[in-house]
Amino acid sequence: MKWVYIKDLKDHIGQDVAIKGWVYNFRSSKNIKFVIVRDGTGLVQSVIAKGETPDEFFDKAEELTQETSIEIQGTIKSFERAIGGVELGVKSFKIIGKSVDYPITPKEHGTPFLMENRHLWLRSKKQHAIMRVRARTIKAMRDYLDNNGFLGLESPILSANSCEGTSTLFACDYFGEKAYLSQSGQLYAEASAMAHGKVYTFGPTFRAEKSKTRRHLTEFWMLEPEMAYYDLEMNMDLIENFVSYVVQTVLKDCKDELVILERDTSSLQKVIAPFPRISYSDAADILEKECPDFVRGGDFGAAHETVVSQRYDKPVFVYDFPKVIKGFYFKESKDPQFVRGCDLLAPEGFGEIVGGGQREDSYEKLVEGINHHGLNLEDYKWYLDLRKYGTVPHAGFGIGVERTVGWICGVHHIRETIPFPRTINNLRP
Amino acid sequence: MKWVYIKDLKDHIGQDVAIKGWVYNFRSSKNIKFVIVRDGTGLVQSVIAKGETPDEFFDKAEELTQETSIEIQGTIKSFERAIGGVELGVKSFKIIGKSVDYPITPKEHGTPFLMENRHLWLRSKKQHAIMRVRARTIKAMRDYLDNNGFLGLESPILSANSCEGTSTLFACDYFGEKAYLSQSGQLYAEASAMAHGKVYTFGPTFRAEKSKTRRHLTEFWMLEPEMAYYDLEMNMDLIENFVSYVVQTVLKDCKDELVILERDTSSLQKVIAPFPRISYSDAADILEKECPDFVRGGDFGAAHETVVSQRYDKPVFVYDFPKVIKGFYFKESKDPQFVRGCDLLAPEGFGEIVGGGQREDSYEKLVEGINHHGLNLEDYKWYLDLRKYGTVPHAGFGIGVERTVGWICGVHHIRETIPFPRTINNLRP
Repeated sequence: MKWVYIKDLKDHIGQDVAIKGWVYNFRSSKNIKFVIVRDGTGLVQSVIAKGETPDEFFDKAEELTQETSIEIQGTIKSFERAIGGVELGVKSFKIIGKSVDYPITPKEHGTPFLMENRHLWLRSKKQHAIMRVRARTIKAMRDYLDNNGFLGLESPILSANSCEGTSTLFACDYFGEKAYLSQSGQLYAEASAMAHGKVYTFGPTFRAEKSKTRRHLTEFWMLEPEMAYYDLEMNMDLIENFVSYVVQTVLKDCKDELVILERDTSSLQKVIAPFPRISYSDAADILEKECPDFVRGGDFGAAHETVVSQRYDKPVFVYDFPKVIKGFYFKESKDPQFVRGCDLLAPEGFGEIVGGGQREDSYEKLVEGINHHGLNLEDYKWYLDLRKYGTVPHAGFGIGVERTVGWICGVHHIRETIPFPRTINNLRP
Repeated sequence: MKWVYIKDLKDHIGQDVAIKGWVYNFRSSKNIKFVIVRDGTGLVQSVIAKGETPDEFFDKAEELTQETSIEIQGTIKSFERAIGGVELGVKSFKIIGKSVDYPITPKEHGTPFLMENRHLWLRSKKQHAIMRVRARTIKAMRDYLDNNGFLGLESPILSANSCEGTSTLFACDYFGEKAYLSQSGQLYAEASAMAHGKVYTFGPTFRAEKSKTRRHLTEFWMLEPEMAYYDLEMNMDLIENFVSYVVQTVLKDCKDELVILERDTSSLQKVIAPFPRISYSDAADILEKECPDFVRGGDFGAAHETVVSQRYDKPVFVYDFPKVIKGFYFKESKDPQFVRGCDLLAPEGFGEIVGGGQREDSYEKLVEGINHHGLNLEDYKWYLDLRKYGTVPHAGFGIGVERTVGWICGVHHIRETIPFPRTINNLRP
């Protein structure tokens, strides 16, 4: 009999089909039994009715514990009130694998327990929805860039030099030498942009940060576009169009998932370019008034980001940051105390999701910056070559996949936005 | 003046436009000078003619050394004999960044020198073409799966357990504990497949192999689909359709690049499903006759792969391998000395590009396999859970991005198929 995925059952009304999945829920009364089955593409209610389903299956249905794997043969009926608009009238079924005492039950579990069982927790309705939003988000990001003249080129993960100092780097033994895990693909993306014009890297990045916040993972995924002949303003134009496309595409394609996640999408619907832009100095004026703990010239904390972003109903750019709080590779602003960086703050307290800026294109200024940051000039010889041989103004940004997914899903703890989160306490499963 | 990418110039014939790029080549005679400019999207011949271009630019053109970055304003003319079918009549130009003694000249350079200068080598015509084929290959791979019901879900890179023993693992200090860099996302993809049905992971994988062959990198990218309720035959059906789609799509979209690479594409044009399938035992019969060094029961070397694949004009599957040469997670064949693995060998001596198989779905057999391989059962407790709670037949495969790109491009050394190759001797740039 033809195997049909649950999402496609609505195209088979009146037909006999087979479904293959797992028992999501089971209810039983004297004459009728309901098995809700999931197969990864959806849920369907399967009905085992006395007199309609052969007796042997009616009795055997009592073995259908949560997460038992099962193949069911039956007839698809239209039934508007059911999940997915159809119901499966069971003719027979076969148990593929039993499931005794499945650890994750409908009752509440503590997070440490769920994290230990992440390999099973992924099957739960909400986690399932988040992962679908994640996949759609990444696809939308790549599609936008692929369709706008960008070339996807991976940056290396292992390398002998670091992007922003070594204090939060994971180190590996590499045949007797020390190799570091990438914190960002940017420097390599810059080299690729000089060859291809517009590029992006997509890959895992690592920070050995001991901070236990709901916004930090030790391993997270970043997408990092980099464009030759772009300045800061062109970069911000690109970012706002890119973010708008991603959010609106996911809103359109993941309606069901966002309902499951109980996400109020009214704020997301407003995420349409252009976005407001405010300089660091203007933001600092606001923060000095509203946040007694804010020190002008310093970096924004999560609370400061919220104060700034709350003034707008869209994501907001903050640009032109004090030089001292930014990486060595940022281009100087007209006022040399500042650099041409731009961060994008999401609304609703979700904070920074994009960090970017124009890169320093002067060889001499870059040497100055590397020395000033106490980095080893020899390690950056290849990076300096990009300024030695046909330097051009260029800019780029990095967008954190997990933070973006968390924002879109309305999930405040980032650990739920990646299949297998890595934090200071989680290296398993 | 409007900035136009070189690939789009043909849509602007008769118009005045600006291009922004780098000097690729410069030829000069008494009354006319030709600057070939590259901008990552293509090449265009720019003509500086005495009497047509103002004298100040005619004289200044002598400064246009290789890789000088330059903005040119001029008029686009149709000129069929030129690269890209157009020519730019220069009205003025501005040098953005000089380039003195660019290290990579049209003369031959040794590979160690080119590898040290990979950040610049990427700008060369052939390397540029390979990277474009690479990006298109990855996009085709993802598109095929996205359009066929698969969910892209990343596997973790850092983890406490290994997939196939620890001898070729890179290890990191993880807050005082040992973490390994992923050799494969498969085990995690299996967990995701139990939640989502059909999934794929895409990411970097690592092998600390000391072998210096032209087919090995220490860091390489893999795409690994995994499907619940699939057996070995369904897996091979999927692989041949997937590989056919990828190869035919790249052939169609990267014609110019394959010409630059001087690739004879006649063999690639034949890569259309179905592919021949031969059991290990039948392949061993052939090898015993043709290769005196082949030992039945052992793994194939590169030379053996070539002998087998040469018999066919398409990629060929070898399936049902001796248990002793495969990982602990393979499902037993009917004859328990064998397991349900399948490798796909590319034609023209490009060797194995896909490895896959059906996974062991029996809890007891899997425990046996883990013990037999001397692995720590406790490390695989979570993986065993997938067989404890609703186990299902499932299968999957891994395809190496670099080997596939090498095959399509006809490039025999894998180091040219990734932006920044990592080998035992190359951790920089």
